[in-house]
Amino acid sequence: MAFTTIEWVGGLDGCARMIDQTRLPGEEVYIECRTAEEVFDAIRRLQVRGAPAIGIAAAMGLILGAREAAGGGTPAFLARVREVAARLNAARPTAVNLGWALRRMTTLAESLRDRSATEALARLLTEARAIRDEDARMCREIGRHGAALLRDGDGVLTHCNAGALAAAEYGTALAVIRAAAERGTRLKVYADETRPLLQGARLTAWELMQSGIDVTLICDNMAGWLMRLGRVQRVVVGADRIAANGDTANKIGTYSVALLAREHGIPFYVAAPSSTFDLSLSDGQGIPIEERQPDEVTCAFGRRTAPEGVKVFNPAFDVTPARLIAAIVTERGVIERPDAAAIRAHFA
Amino acid sequence: MAFTTIEWVGGLDGCARMIDQTRLPGEEVYIECRTAEEVFDAIRRLQVRGAPAIGIAAAMGLILGAREAAGGGTPAFLARVREVAARLNAARPTAVNLGWALRRMTTLAESLRDRSATEALARLLTEARAIRDEDARMCREIGRHGAALLRDGDGVLTHCNAGALAAAEYGTALAVIRAAAERGTRLKVYADETRPLLQGARLTAWELMQSGIDVTLICDNMAGWLMRLGRVQRVVVGADRIAANGDTANKIGTYSVALLAREHGIPFYVAAPSSTFDLSLSDGQGIPIEERQPDEVTCAFGRRTAPEGVKVFNPAFDVTPARLIAAIVTERGVIERPDAAAIRAHFA
Repeated sequence: MAFTTIEWVGGLDGCARMIDQTRLPGEEVYIECRTAEEVFDAIRRLQVRGAPAIGIAAAMGLILGAREAAGGGTPAFLARVREVAARLNAARPTAVNLGWALRRMTTLAESLRDRSATEALARLLTEARAIRDEDARMCREIGRHGAALLRDGDGVLTHCNAGALAAAEYGTALAVIRAAAERGTRLKVYADETRPLLQGARLTAWELMQSGIDVTLICDNMAGWLMRLGRVQRVVVGADRIAANGDTANKIGTYSVALLAREHGIPFYVAAPSSTFDLSLSDGQGIPIEERQPDEVTCAFGRRTAPEGVKVFNPAFDVTPARLIAAIVTERGVIERPDAAAIRAHFA
Repeated sequence: MAFTTIEWVGGLDGCARMIDQTRLPGEEVYIECRTAEEVFDAIRRLQVRGAPAIGIAAAMGLILGAREAAGGGTPAFLARVREVAARLNAARPTAVNLGWALRRMTTLAESLRDRSATEALARLLTEARAIRDEDARMCREIGRHGAALLRDGDGVLTHCNAGALAAAEYGTALAVIRAAAERGTRLKVYADETRPLLQGARLTAWELMQSGIDVTLICDNMAGWLMRLGRVQRVVVGADRIAANGDTANKIGTYSVALLAREHGIPFYVAAPSSTFDLSLSDGQGIPIEERQPDEVTCAFGRRTAPEGVKVFNPAFDVTPARLIAAIVTERGVIERPDAAAIRAHFA
């Protein structure tokens, strides 16, 4: 990969460095966050996005916030850790990886309450780096398990960006595509542009072209017709939160794609690491859906494209019921026909 | 209506005046076409668009082209009429109203072969104006017949722009909405923005707001989720060409909306004047689908939003099979469960 989605640079006085995804594909610019608030803003503004990547960003943001209190006693340090975690957790509501990473970090911090703040901080940095490295390994495993789902000659549709830019590296949905391509499976990938913020056009098309994988861009409303024309044999998407029964929150439009796929007899796959599962939710009804600002819809391209004052509905995610999902691919393997029992067994 | 979609201004030495739809909603600018080639360009560039409106534009374009030969003999005039008609007919392939209006004009011209070119030209101008006025009347009738399909309190989704801007005035799909609203039916209209050229955001939202009708803008990929949330009770769209069995070509994305509507038990209606039917085609397979330039997708709004050199698939239309259509509304009435027999009976 010719870019680095997110990494920690330096030691305890270092920073979180990430590629600014709002400026791709036009410019490859990196930002360096030195405070938790800068990470909060980067997540909120989607400079870093994608469920696994924002989990990693949050873990690094916690270091940045906590180190401000590393000079004091351990109780003050732990209080700061809890405060920063609560703040970062509020950056975006839907992707569960954010809370997952922050819980992992705060649980570790609490377990170090008999150590000095400085020592605890050092351990937390090791943990944040581990979260990043584990994510990279999980994505490789997702690719390994998922590659066999794609057949030579398939047209494969994906929605939004569940690629290297959405994770530490390699991606989730795109890991399946990458791994298949690395095995010599010839694929024709179609990328939904994914309005309003065009992650498919700006990010998925860009990273697949960089990897030499055949990709064709379409507008979201062309997916059904493309299926009708017989050009799509498989759909693979990522996930922002998966409930215990397999209901899957992902970028707005995913639900429509899943319904259209079923109508055309096309298997619809979800690829996600175990950190994206929220087994505390029995089904997708409990998943909070972020609603974002109207101007993402009315003037996203640098020009106003809708009348002043028009009402807008702009949900950032939707929930695809498990019954529409042929399989979920995790780092542990493939969950065919996901439901509560299959998911329980998968993680047993 | 505070705007005029298209009109003939002046006498035989006049021009076709139309609102430049590529500059809405930011600017209300009118263009005046004085040659057939200018009309050809206006149709091709979508300065005038919508099946009924481009039929009217073509009829007026024929006058502009033919009058250049009005000083010669009738045979030369008729040759010019045929030549200009062929040229204009090639401007866009999908909407049948273009060919319909041009055939009507050339048939009239041929029937006047014993008159002088000047007299024939005058008759053709009367005919072009009649096509415009008939379209306005048909749209009112479509509204009158279709209004009863919408119920008080309905959420009504529409795709692209089948409004006053797509016709002489009043619209087709939006005529149904307008007529219902005029009867006091309270509606909540949702407009798909309709990528790539955003006719829903730029045109439908604009003209409904001008008419004081409650409208909310969504991205195309939100339609399925909106239905799932229970906010849509009816879908009404226009048409570019309807085959003898009811298969309907309309703006890309219509087919997906129709499938999603069926999945959610929502009636899907098509509104179109009889000039949009192509009874020479037994089904939708014969309808030519225009493919447009990639840059509509990669940099439609003044900024490049996809990597240089990315492959793009950009069909401008798709075909919705008749089985997904609950009813087609024409100026003659409502064709419930449209099929070849019902359509034959409707036009008998």
